[in-house]
Amino acid sequence: MKPKVAIFGLGLVGGSLARALARRGYSLSGVDPSAAALAAARRSRAFALVTRSPERGLAGANIVVLAAPPRANLALLRRLARRARGAPRQRSRRLIVTDVSSVKRSICALAASLPGVDFVGGHPMAGRERSGFGASHASLFRGRPWILTPTGSRRARRVIRRIVLDAGARPVALSAAEHDRAMAFLSHLPQLVSWALLDAVRRDAVAGARLSLAGPAFVDMTRIAKSPRRLWREILGQNRDELKRALRAFRAALISPL
Amino acid sequence: MKPKVAIFGLGLVGGSLARALARRGYSLSGVDPSAAALAAARRSRAFALVTRSPERGLAGANIVVLAAPPRANLALLRRLARRARGAPRQRSRRLIVTDVSSVKRSICALAASLPGVDFVGGHPMAGRERSGFGASHASLFRGRPWILTPTGSRRARRVIRRIVLDAGARPVALSAAEHDRAMAFLSHLPQLVSWALLDAVRRDAVAGARLSLAGPAFVDMTRIAKSPRRLWREILGQNRDELKRALRAFRAALISPL
Repeated sequence: MKPKVAIFGLGLVGGSLARALARRGYSLSGVDPSAAALAAARRSRAFALVTRSPERGLAGANIVVLAAPPRANLALLRRLARRARGAPRQRSRRLIVTDVSSVKRSICALAASLPGVDFVGGHPMAGRERSGFGASHASLFRGRPWILTPTGSRRARRVIRRIVLDAGARPVALSAAEHDRAMAFLSHLPQLVSWALLDAVRRDAVAGARLSLAGPAFVDMTRIAKSPRRLWREILGQNRDELKRALRAFRAALISPL
Repeated sequence: MKPKVAIFGLGLVGGSLARALARRGYSLSGVDPSAAALAAARRSRAFALVTRSPERGLAGANIVVLAAPPRANLALLRRLARRARGAPRQRSRRLIVTDVSSVKRSICALAASLPGVDFVGGHPMAGRERSGFGASHASLFRGRPWILTPTGSRRARRVIRRIVLDAGARPVALSAAEHDRAMAFLSHLPQLVSWALLDAVRRDAVAGARLSLAGPAFVDMTRIAKSPRRLWREILGQNRDELKRALRAFRAALISPL
């Protein structure tokens, strides 16, 4: 039988995961503080239950997916651990928790300090510049890598791996440290670069007035500049040290062809 | 009657222009030093004549399009001007010449010093990461801006504008100075950035081993890193001062979100 999964955070990733798993017969509950997100989630018919209340969303769930912004995921993980302390389970029956945050060391370190949760860190390598449940679709993860940290119990890793496969993604094992280093170069640095390309043009009187002349390369390179800056500041802040390393490497590479 | 056009340089841009104009009934000659390019051009059936010899290619042509790399275009323009001196025409019958180089001040300044040619600078804002005649296609310029400098005689400007429209592009008037400033930001800087992103990843042991995890944003942002470096070094070298300005602006913008 499919496990019952509670998804916390009904944005692009949480919504897309729900749509994909609903098609595979999972029973899902969805939790989000936003009334608009809850209404959209309800209309999608992907969930058995949608609610603002974490407690109600958790009732009967075997697995929790934290799909809120990075800082909110940390707070939710602490809350789940407190609740587990209040209602102790056998070690083999701890609540299995995973997340989809773009930085892995911070949440994995926190989870390691919380005995009540059995945590496997996750990060689907899929996204788009639009955000919110309205942008979600069942095939967002199809064929994409989904990084999983080698943490938690064997049972938890097996269960989460199954969910990732059922979402259509390709599980890839990677330590939190390796993940954060690679993502600094492959995802976080490109985000800074995309903003900086567009900002540099906009601040130049001549080039800024000729933005409509930009070719497809410029358009492709600044597409993610539309991504939500607030969410990104959280991500970049949690990976500051690795991002600094990537920025140094990028700056050094930027001079060399001239 | 359509003018007879000689295209010097049968790469992506020269080839695509030939294919587009051939469909509109132009009589074309193609000139290139490469036997492979000449063979591909011959197979395309876009040309009345293809030849290694600039003299043969010019015979009977009213208009020359310089579509070789930037430095070769400068040399070809000097050669055309010398030839015009040898066979003087009336001022109103000077040879009309345009080019497709990505930098405009250098070739426009040279042309202004050569009384034998009636020169309109051009730059189609279209391209792709593949190069060579084999990558050319008739619709490369469709709907794209094609920058024309306000140089040359009124007759030359009218004739070249017609060619640009017949190629399916949208003529945009821009001074050489404005063009070079805007392109430094919109095209030349992005080229450096694309190389640097990929180089930074490749030089990092951890990220370099995980390049396969890159999401669509990274792939989009490094697509033009495949563009031919030798050609690009010529372009960047001719626009060095404006590129330095764009790099300064980019570096300043790169820090600000952190």
